[in-house]
Amino acid sequence: MSGKIPVLEIFGPTIQGEGMVAGQKTMFVRTGGCDYRCAWCDSAFTWDGSQKATPMNASTIMEELERIGGERFSHVTISGGNPALHTGIAALVKLFQEKGIASAVETQGSFWQDWLLAVDEVTVSPKPPSSKMGTDWSRLDTFMKRLAEEQAGHHSLKVVIFDEKDLAYATQVHERYPDVPFYLQVGNDDLEALEPARLRDHLLEKYEWLVAKVMEESQLNDVRVLPQIHALLWGNKQGV
Amino acid sequence: MSGKIPVLEIFGPTIQGEGMVAGQKTMFVRTGGCDYRCAWCDSAFTWDGSQKATPMNASTIMEELERIGGERFSHVTISGGNPALHTGIAALVKLFQEKGIASAVETQGSFWQDWLLAVDEVTVSPKPPSSKMGTDWSRLDTFMKRLAEEQAGHHSLKVVIFDEKDLAYATQVHERYPDVPFYLQVGNDDLEALEPARLRDHLLEKYEWLVAKVMEESQLNDVRVLPQIHALLWGNKQGV
Ligand code: SF4
Ligand code: SF4
Repeated sequence: MSGKIPVLEIFGPTIQGEGMVAGQKTMFVRTGGCDYRCAWCDSAFTWDGSQKATPMNASTIMEELERIGGERFSHVTISGGNPALHTGIAALVKLFQEKGIASAVETQGSFWQDWLLAVDEVTVSPKPPSSKMGTDWSRLDTFMKRLAEEQAGHHSLKVVIFDEKDLAYATQVHERYPDVPFYLQVGNDDLEALEPARLRDHLLEKYEWLVAKVMEESQLNDVRVLPQIHALLWGNKQGV
Repeated sequence: MSGKIPVLEIFGPTIQGEGMVAGQKTMFVRTGGCDYRCAWCDSAFTWDGSQKATPMNASTIMEELERIGGERFSHVTISGGNPALHTGIAALVKLFQEKGIASAVETQGSFWQDWLLAVDEVTVSPKPPSSKMGTDWSRLDTFMKRLAEEQAGHHSLKVVIFDEKDLAYATQVHERYPDVPFYLQVGNDDLEALEPARLRDHLLEKYEWLVAKVMEESQLNDVRVLPQIHALLWGNKQGV
């Protein structure tokens, strides 16, 4: 069954709210399953059993993208969960290439897939201490090396920051891979706040804190600090 | 006197709030003088006589950057007004290159300077109808052609959007230069609102409007729509 991809949702077009292609008009394909269990996971429904994934093959996913997005897209983001668990995505990425559709993926860098080399924008997001997950550095080294040497498109690193310890971890990541474009993002720890205006103020306060921290730190000069644009607009709503 | 650059402010490090390097940690050098008079110019103090520029040469600007920024920067944004009015910036950009400092510039594309070729990130921001300025398309064509053929770094187009007419203009720009990374940004027409929270809500509402418009438009697929991060954080305050 390696040809099938467990899909939780397909939606868009909307904007990419995070990282190296923040603001990009894109469709989303969200896959189920993750090898991590981050304490603050904002996509826990991809792995906690609360929602059921549908096994789909590449061409069915493409049909669904075209049914929903019509002529209104030329970019697709594959998100998770950890999309790099699924070998079947190879066929999907190939379809995108044939159709001239740009693709983006985010993964924590714990599993390699050769299809990552054909993705236009790969965001690698190792998880900081607040996630309660550990980083296998030698695995991540291999992952980053393959991207650097073999990927035709672009890749970047992104670390989500909740506290000072996370920032120290991020500095370590940046120093280990100094040539990789580096993004910091403020963590969204207010998952219960369903009132968007309150969440918005809270996120902007935390973002301002992170910006101030990064400005003081000479080891974090070539860095981009971004808010979660998505959460600013729509709070924690799923499927927008 | 071509060696001197009229400088209005030097500050940072802070984050770049807009466009292709949004979120980047950077110092700012703001130059005085503009050949345009946009109806909604948010930097009118660079040309309306309300603030006086100091003529500075490249090395003095560099000293001031180092005095203020210390070890805490590796990126400088030259903003205006229109920085492309000043030939003296050539020496400044050369200094940045020698010191391994990345540079970014934003200009409307009305004047060419050879030093633009040595800038790492050039944002070209033609002005839409709401500005009450006209676009000299053949001049802009020449400008974009030189960047495409001769620039070593990256460049992008950015259009600020206030209304539907601006969006039609932006679509025209995107279709004229389809291979250039294209950014849309919501206009900040609430310059009098000094209360940041109110400005913030207003900007996010307008941003949401722009996002919705772009999502519906099949001519605007390969587009990035960004808020003014800066204004979300700090309102219209100068020098942050
Ligand atoms: S890696 Fe991502 S999807 Fe997986 S548990 Fe962590 S935050 Fe959630
Ligand atoms: S080009 Fe820029 S600085 Fe000049 S008037 Fe227009 S908005 Fe203001």
